[in-house]
Amino acid sequence: MTFYYPNGKPYKEPFETGKKTIKPMNKNKIQYGNRGMSLEDDLNLTNQYYLERQMAVVHKKPTPVQIVKVDYPKRSQAKITEAYYRRASTTDYNGVFQGKYIDFEAKETHNVNLLPLKNFHDHQIKHMRQVMMQQGICFIIVKFSKKQDVYLLDAGILIRYWDLQQTGGRKSIPRETIEREGHLVPQSYLPRLDYLSIVKQVYL
Amino acid sequence: MTFYYPNGKPYKEPFETGKKTIKPMNKNKIQYGNRGMSLEDDLNLTNQYYLERQMAVVHKKPTPVQIVKVDYPKRSQAKITEAYYRRASTTDYNGVFQGKYIDFEAKETHNVNLLPLKNFHDHQIKHMRQVMMQQGICFIIVKFSKKQDVYLLDAGILIRYWDLQQTGGRKSIPRETIEREGHLVPQSYLPRLDYLSIVKQVYL
Repeated sequence: MTFYYPNGKPYKEPFETGKKTIKPMNKNKIQYGNRGMSLEDDLNLTNQYYLERQMAVVHKKPTPVQIVKVDYPKRSQAKITEAYYRRASTTDYNGVFQGKYIDFEAKETHNVNLLPLKNFHDHQIKHMRQVMMQQGICFIIVKFSKKQDVYLLDAGILIRYWDLQQTGGRKSIPRETIEREGHLVPQSYLPRLDYLSIVKQVYL
Repeated sequence: MTFYYPNGKPYKEPFETGKKTIKPMNKNKIQYGNRGMSLEDDLNLTNQYYLERQMAVVHKKPTPVQIVKVDYPKRSQAKITEAYYRRASTTDYNGVFQGKYIDFEAKETHNVNLLPLKNFHDHQIKHMRQVMMQQGICFIIVKFSKKQDVYLLDAGILIRYWDLQQTGGRKSIPRETIEREGHLVPQSYLPRLDYLSIVKQVYL
């Protein structure tokens, strides 16, 4: 099968060019459109797009780290030489959209038909409850990596499944539920994942 | 001068008790009420108070760290062995209060009569502008550590001084301005620094 560039020229695998110095690309990394980028990368690009266009201010929070030892070499930058990952007590993303607080967690799953609840932990669920009580806009963004489709699902639905699990219910949210109660996030070159278009429809 | 405890007993410096094993306390560290805690500690306790009472959900963001090397010793936690501090691209605190986004930076100064603008950096000011454009509630909390008084000052006033500085204006905000255009934050045992009471008055 031959692929064509938009200018009509046929696409050649790098190793077909005859230039020995060019390494064959990893086939899995060949990008057709948007495929293969991590959900985090896509969200970062999307947030940057929103920021530049003054549509919203949303940032990913830094990874929480417990710093134990720091060296201060002369004339150079402080160097952290011992530190450990800490578990986040909140979700990863938050920010402001038209004065309103928005807050979400993003999860990618290789499962085809479900999102396992073990992708979340107690603290995050507690945080989502608190945000909802405070009338913040709170949701999750779920990517099914096999099909590459991405959904926005209100945190209330996640919490419902979480609570049912505590009393012996299932350990995952079925894809069916996510399709029915969530919203398919439009994907394009820019913005990658236009979740704000959904937020406007659902929460404003 | 003698101080008295609320029960009427006179306060004695630890080194007056005659017990040789008790180290004389650092005079600067003797706490009368709330004094001596760092602004960050006070804000963390305040935010915890708000959280527990469902008054607001505000967290300090983790310190951003660039992780370079990680060891994965068998059967134990991943250990970060090389990392560097990164400059934050946003302010330190954000969260939600009655559905509204709030965002602030906290600064403590030893200066008696002014807050130097060098306490802030470009990225933070840019972030504050973005938040204000998005109708978020945005301010700074300033503590004058000598007098131990704390003010809430709208980010717009900081930005005004910042912009004037760019065209040769002064390199600090006078205490006078902060007293006149800002708001004294009530201090007590709990909550330590009741900045929400000011937010309600000024922004809602």
